[in-house]
Amino acid sequence: MATAIDIWENYLTIAKWQDFVNGTLESGSSSPIFNINPNDDREFDAIYLGGGAAGRFGAAYLRAMGGRVLIIDRWPFLGGSCPHQACVPHHLFSDCAAQLMLERTFSGQLWFQEMIGKTVSIKPIVELFRSGRTGPHAMMNYQSKEQLGLEFVLNAEAKIIDAHTIQVNGSQFQAKNLVLALGAKPIVPDVPGIQLQGVFTSQSLVEKLDDEPGNTAVVIGGGKTAIEYGCFFNATGRRTIIVARHQAMPMLKDAESRAYAILMMEEQGMEFLENAELSVIHGDAQGKVKTVSIKTAGGIVNIDTDFVFIAIGEQANSEQVAQTLGLELDDKSFIKVNRRMQTSIANVYAVGDVTGPPMEMFKARKEGVCAAKNIMGQASEYKAADYPDFMHTHYEVSWLGLSETQARQRYANVKILKLPPDNPNGFDVGLPAGDRMMLYLMAKPRMSGFQKLIIDGDTRKIVGAIHIGYGAKDGFQYLNYLVKNGLTIDDLADMDELFISPSYFIQLCRLRAGDIHFNDM
Amino acid sequence: MATAIDIWENYLTIAKWQDFVNGTLESGSSSPIFNINPNDDREFDAIYLGGGAAGRFGAAYLRAMGGRVLIIDRWPFLGGSCPHQACVPHHLFSDCAAQLMLERTFSGQLWFQEMIGKTVSIKPIVELFRSGRTGPHAMMNYQSKEQLGLEFVLNAEAKIIDAHTIQVNGSQFQAKNLVLALGAKPIVPDVPGIQLQGVFTSQSLVEKLDDEPGNTAVVIGGGKTAIEYGCFFNATGRRTIIVARHQAMPMLKDAESRAYAILMMEEQGMEFLENAELSVIHGDAQGKVKTVSIKTAGGIVNIDTDFVFIAIGEQANSEQVAQTLGLELDDKSFIKVNRRMQTSIANVYAVGDVTGPPMEMFKARKEGVCAAKNIMGQASEYKAADYPDFMHTHYEVSWLGLSETQARQRYANVKILKLPPDNPNGFDVGLPAGDRMMLYLMAKPRMSGFQKLIIDGDTRKIVGAIHIGYGAKDGFQYLNYLVKNGLTIDDLADMDELFISPSYFIQLCRLRAGDIHFNDM
Repeated sequence: MATAIDIWENYLTIAKWQDFVNGTLESGSSSPIFNINPNDDREFDAIYLGGGAAGRFGAAYLRAMGGRVLIIDRWPFLGGSCPHQACVPHHLFSDCAAQLMLERTFSGQLWFQEMIGKTVSIKPIVELFRSGRTGPHAMMNYQSKEQLGLEFVLNAEAKIIDAHTIQVNGSQFQAKNLVLALGAKPIVPDVPGIQLQGVFTSQSLVEKLDDEPGNTAVVIGGGKTAIEYGCFFNATGRRTIIVARHQAMPMLKDAESRAYAILMMEEQGMEFLENAELSVIHGDAQGKVKTVSIKTAGGIVNIDTDFVFIAIGEQANSEQVAQTLGLELDDKSFIKVNRRMQTSIANVYAVGDVTGPPMEMFKARKEGVCAAKNIMGQASEYKAADYPDFMHTHYEVSWLGLSETQARQRYANVKILKLPPDNPNGFDVGLPAGDRMMLYLMAKPRMSGFQKLIIDGDTRKIVGAIHIGYGAKDGFQYLNYLVKNGLTIDDLADMDELFISPSYFIQLCRLRAGDIHFNDM
Repeated sequence: MATAIDIWENYLTIAKWQDFVNGTLESGSSSPIFNINPNDDREFDAIYLGGGAAGRFGAAYLRAMGGRVLIIDRWPFLGGSCPHQACVPHHLFSDCAAQLMLERTFSGQLWFQEMIGKTVSIKPIVELFRSGRTGPHAMMNYQSKEQLGLEFVLNAEAKIIDAHTIQVNGSQFQAKNLVLALGAKPIVPDVPGIQLQGVFTSQSLVEKLDDEPGNTAVVIGGGKTAIEYGCFFNATGRRTIIVARHQAMPMLKDAESRAYAILMMEEQGMEFLENAELSVIHGDAQGKVKTVSIKTAGGIVNIDTDFVFIAIGEQANSEQVAQTLGLELDDKSFIKVNRRMQTSIANVYAVGDVTGPPMEMFKARKEGVCAAKNIMGQASEYKAADYPDFMHTHYEVSWLGLSETQARQRYANVKILKLPPDNPNGFDVGLPAGDRMMLYLMAKPRMSGFQKLIIDGDTRKIVGAIHIGYGAKDGFQYLNYLVKNGLTIDDLADMDELFISPSYFIQLCRLRAGDIHFNDM
């Protein structure tokens, strides 16, 4: 039993929290951090196991509703895997990819440095992340304690005694309800050589990258994480091969938009092996990766490399709790919940990645909040649906609603507004562009993005939207809400655009809205 | 009378249009370009004089409503000053400012080149713009002709015969209505030395910059254009002094947000002279700028420089038409219009910058459309109000609704949600961040932006929002529409955020929305 650190009476600034989290992570200290109100003798309405997106937001909501809540997390910070190993490093690497694509495109022109043949080191970027991530950790600890008034125990393993009782560092805590917000981790496939040095997942990359990778990166997987990290490796100047079991980037359903995204990646030198599967990773005498064998329709393809990145999906951190509590899991080991976030045991809830996809921030947070409402007696249901989505290539790719094909299956009179338009010059038009795309607009017009608005011509309602470029992603949060509420092209035409808009949806609609039977454009 | 070029029967690709516009601009050809349907014998419902934002959108809308419309423009392209001399170059220069700030911040670190002491040439960037701008011109000509079916005469001066008759290149055109969409141009103050070489406006900078500016830029004006170009000059490595008659950046009303924006500019080395006025520009024997004298409260300040940038506002291109038609102007020479866009002469309309501020794209376009509707018999009124706004520093700065002070004057129970929060570390927190801010988040947290949501705590309605960073601007288009329609923090809490959101408004609301009497954060 380690000596607990009680911080309830201490006001810790963000800077102090950063030192503290940093020190705890570096030293590997096992002292739990207790922030529990000694003057509140109410029973906890809930204990949230896990203080990531789902746990922290759910607990904050529950507390805001007047309940008493405790969060327990194994890490010395709240916020979970996102700022530590998942979304934040991915965004950092994607920013580097965008930045490096720009520098390579303008290599030796204007003020840009010569980038031809230059390989950028990955290790210092990973190290920058490792030293920088404690800032967001500190901010979330500060916000949770000083602004949200949350009670928590950090840097401690929770032991489940029963569905109402948790033990931490020798102390037992009772709660009316238990909320499992335990997250997920990357799946590691069972293939020969998977344990060799040089094989990484998104998680181990930021924790364990010790040698600078060589000049070839093999990425196993065709989904978001695979493409996002693959584009980063490519942008650093490495040969990068995406190995997709079926199709690469299948989540972007609109075929034309996907074709633009893939074409731009190919023009950056990315290679794609589709309908292909990792077969064996061969090592050298020192136990390091040497060659990867990929099974394709045309036979085995061998690629010499010392760097393999595995991104084939996520699995729930569910085994232990499921066993202890006797919870029902689905066939992929995600914890089964109903729309109230209840598991097979009435007072035990599960929220966030541990309940399965989509493994997105909004879904985790809203599930956490949904559980909180039900626990506090406000009946609430949630099931992620009709949400906007995004990923990074070297660009930001955002989408909502239906693809063109899906729309045509559902509606008789589909209209399309897009930039660039269909024209004999193909993509060689410097629009849409927008902020952070202006150099492309001027010098490499085909690289300045693609966007598309899909409309039911009869009702004039927007049914789908896609944008590839920069700066439009944030708008999709609001646009999706409007589309779900029946937004028409006439509504869009009436808005006040902030020119140069990365998404030209408002102005494209205004140019056409005067026509009752408006046409494609 | 020059030989007219008739293109009605020709299908011109975007690439062909680009060659054509380029050639016409370079040769200074005075041949007018006619795109008029010889098979349509209807009288024109309107002639739009000027094919910029107001004229082109108005004409497109009128045509979409079934009317017949002609656009006449003096340039060989549609789209007006925006892509030629105004918004597009400003956006290019602001992108360069953002990019250069990043490169200077990380100078010599990671893969970034050494930037300390390095001055970046402005002239090649201006030249890149001059060669690249014909791309957007070509796109708009193509869109106008092939997609919108518009009739137009380009590269021709229109002579007003009377309120129904326009003469171009010897031909006369009759129309039921005339719409003046003539735009505006930078004001040049009447001070000694204003004609010296080295004095520029935003317009002349892109047309006439022939020598590379020295190491000091003096910017006269404190408004959007002054700050935007000033930040660009600063980012190139030049000493840059903003000379504001009253306050710099007065349009950003929220004091705290403005303080952050100014602080970040000062940390980049920008200098501000407020309550200061250009007095004299002194030249050398060759007629080039040598010294600028500024009148301040503390006396005259002399600054040695060869480069003065004038950005003190815009004046309407109204003199000639007003005289010919006998139109009423306001005291600043903008054409007076009612809410139907009618001038003092019933069938003569005026739209866009020629009617005065705000000189923004949405206002010009919506005025053009408003005139079109009235001409086509659909009664319509428009007056720009409650619009979202933005400008660039080295960042994108977007805002809507009320400042905190304005909100407190109007509401008794104002709540604030912001990032970074008030804390003893000041701005040294790596949030909000978001896409294109991740390197700052990790290494220079105070540079990672600022944002604020202002709420009426009683109705829970959003009444103001500000964001300084990258990637949130596009969202303000939609957010403003929602706010005007009564958006509450509970509505925001229910949306699906795309993490990492540059604007954290949704999640900040969700963290607080559970509380009936929610607090600041």
